[in-house]
Amino acid sequence: MTILINKQQRLASRPAAEPTLDNFRLAEAPVPELAAGQVLVRHHFLSLDPYMRGRMNDGKSYAAPQPLDEVMIGGTAGEVVASRSDRFAVGDRVVGMGGWQQYQVIDAAQPGMLRKVDTAHVPLSAYLGPVGMPGVTAWYGLVRIIAPKAGETVVVSAASGAVGTVVGQLARLRGARAIGIAGGPEKCRAVVEELGFDACIDYHEHRDARSLAAALKSACPNGIDGYFENVGGVILDAVMLRLNAFARIAMCGMIAGYNGEPIPMAAPQLILVNRVKVEGFIVSEHMDVWPEALTELAGLVAHGHLKYRESVAQGIEAAPAAFLGLLKGRNFGKQLVKLV
Amino acid sequence: MTILINKQQRLASRPAAEPTLDNFRLAEAPVPELAAGQVLVRHHFLSLDPYMRGRMNDGKSYAAPQPLDEVMIGGTAGEVVASRSDRFAVGDRVVGMGGWQQYQVIDAAQPGMLRKVDTAHVPLSAYLGPVGMPGVTAWYGLVRIIAPKAGETVVVSAASGAVGTVVGQLARLRGARAIGIAGGPEKCRAVVEELGFDACIDYHEHRDARSLAAALKSACPNGIDGYFENVGGVILDAVMLRLNAFARIAMCGMIAGYNGEPIPMAAPQLILVNRVKVEGFIVSEHMDVWPEALTELAGLVAHGHLKYRESVAQGIEAAPAAFLGLLKGRNFGKQLVKLV
Repeated sequence: MTILINKQQRLASRPAAEPTLDNFRLAEAPVPELAAGQVLVRHHFLSLDPYMRGRMNDGKSYAAPQPLDEVMIGGTAGEVVASRSDRFAVGDRVVGMGGWQQYQVIDAAQPGMLRKVDTAHVPLSAYLGPVGMPGVTAWYGLVRIIAPKAGETVVVSAASGAVGTVVGQLARLRGARAIGIAGGPEKCRAVVEELGFDACIDYHEHRDARSLAAALKSACPNGIDGYFENVGGVILDAVMLRLNAFARIAMCGMIAGYNGEPIPMAAPQLILVNRVKVEGFIVSEHMDVWPEALTELAGLVAHGHLKYRESVAQGIEAAPAAFLGLLKGRNFGKQLVKLV
Repeated sequence: MTILINKQQRLASRPAAEPTLDNFRLAEAPVPELAAGQVLVRHHFLSLDPYMRGRMNDGKSYAAPQPLDEVMIGGTAGEVVASRSDRFAVGDRVVGMGGWQQYQVIDAAQPGMLRKVDTAHVPLSAYLGPVGMPGVTAWYGLVRIIAPKAGETVVVSAASGAVGTVVGQLARLRGARAIGIAGGPEKCRAVVEELGFDACIDYHEHRDARSLAAALKSACPNGIDGYFENVGGVILDAVMLRLNAFARIAMCGMIAGYNGEPIPMAAPQLILVNRVKVEGFIVSEHMDVWPEALTELAGLVAHGHLKYRESVAQGIEAAPAAFLGLLKGRNFGKQLVKLV
């Protein structure tokens, strides 16, 4: 009998501020025998996402902290390689929350833990990006909170990320103007030329809110009606200076403060002056929208109407460095780790 | 023929920061002859409200600035003393936006400018307070934005003001706990003993957000589900530290910043962490709710279920000083000027 070895990345320690490679530890564990009802999934792709930074802390957040010395949590897409369940067959393509490891043994009967996906029209990795959690995140914030009308202007920060790329394209599909904010000229060019945004502002060229607000004024001559927030800090302050009356802000992430830096909002009175609605959300708390959102997103990807990019690191060993790069904005589009 | 002299308070100059008596000028003008369709209203009460501070500025806000050298705008309640309209008879009790003056001549046909009110069950002055704009403001923010469930905890700042007193009582009538924040032990005692709030915190005893948050923790052992914001600054920061998941903040006023002081929000990431909805509103933009709100409020006042207090200054000459006192929180309940 062959013993399968499962390489894993575990949380070795909690970061004091900015995380480092030392916070992770590569481990190996044998894959156990399958019990009745269990399946063995070989992960093809691991998803890296900004929310994982929050889980590394011990403090109060919306999610329980990641326990020390356990496998880092994370979304995965893979293939059933052994099954003792009649729900899944060997060869099925599946997505789940398998964590930072090569294999996972899972009870197939647990609801919502493993989902079979169709890879005839949508590539497997897209189920971790535009047709997965990042896509539904974009969909929820845009459709349910911002709810843009045709002709309105929607701004999204981290526009070249897995969520931001989808936000802008969905906004355009609904007849709105889409303006991105991203870091660096290459990202900005691709956001406009490849993804079809109306404009993209390079925040590296604007280190204070006043300068960025002036750039937004040029890019959004009719003001800003909707803002999808992934960053916070100076970028939020700048956007708020250009909001129209009755603007909506979907607050999805504040990566600027993930390492504990204070990121005050300079002028909250603008929420009142402009009668703004600001709403924080976590997509996993809105499971009711997933079927509708995924149906739309899968159709758009299958027909080529929703474009996406992936940054792919190779091998479980590369996951920590790829994650640190994601937190610094080194990725373009969805950050994945390819495990096969 | 007797010539009626109409004393008025006009805006003489715009304040650089904190307004002073010099910003106002007492003027006299003869009351003109009535044209066909016009009525003459003698004002019994003038309403003083925090929003007037914003109108004194020239900057961008949600409302046009008050023009210099014109009569200060403001809500009024009075009596028709002459009429050339068949819509109003001499002796009718009416409310309108007559401004800081003793009399107003008005075209009775202009929709919404003058409204006849029933003073058999509700005192005339209450139409400027709990059964008027402040009452509907409280109603809209509480019912439409906070929408408290029975057993939830609602906090309101400026709890002893015209709006705050109504917010807390409406919250309790809906089965929620109501916690006030007010300035000084007398106000806090009255908010609890007279108005029936569950508790009231004296912010004079808590000069920083941490101290106030500790007091809120004691007063709100189950956290805060709804917050009605009239003040901003440190008080908002403290409340945000105690918010529950899915809390709602109705942003009605930020008197802390009315003179142009910066009032940053220390930790906007808490909006995301706790999935909070923050919504700014102006009650005059929601005229559709006024009939429903006024019906409830009038019924509650008529039956003694909604208590209110008034601070009454005497005479048009006293209006500027009373207004400056309002901005400093010297009033308890609705600040009025009695003109008869």
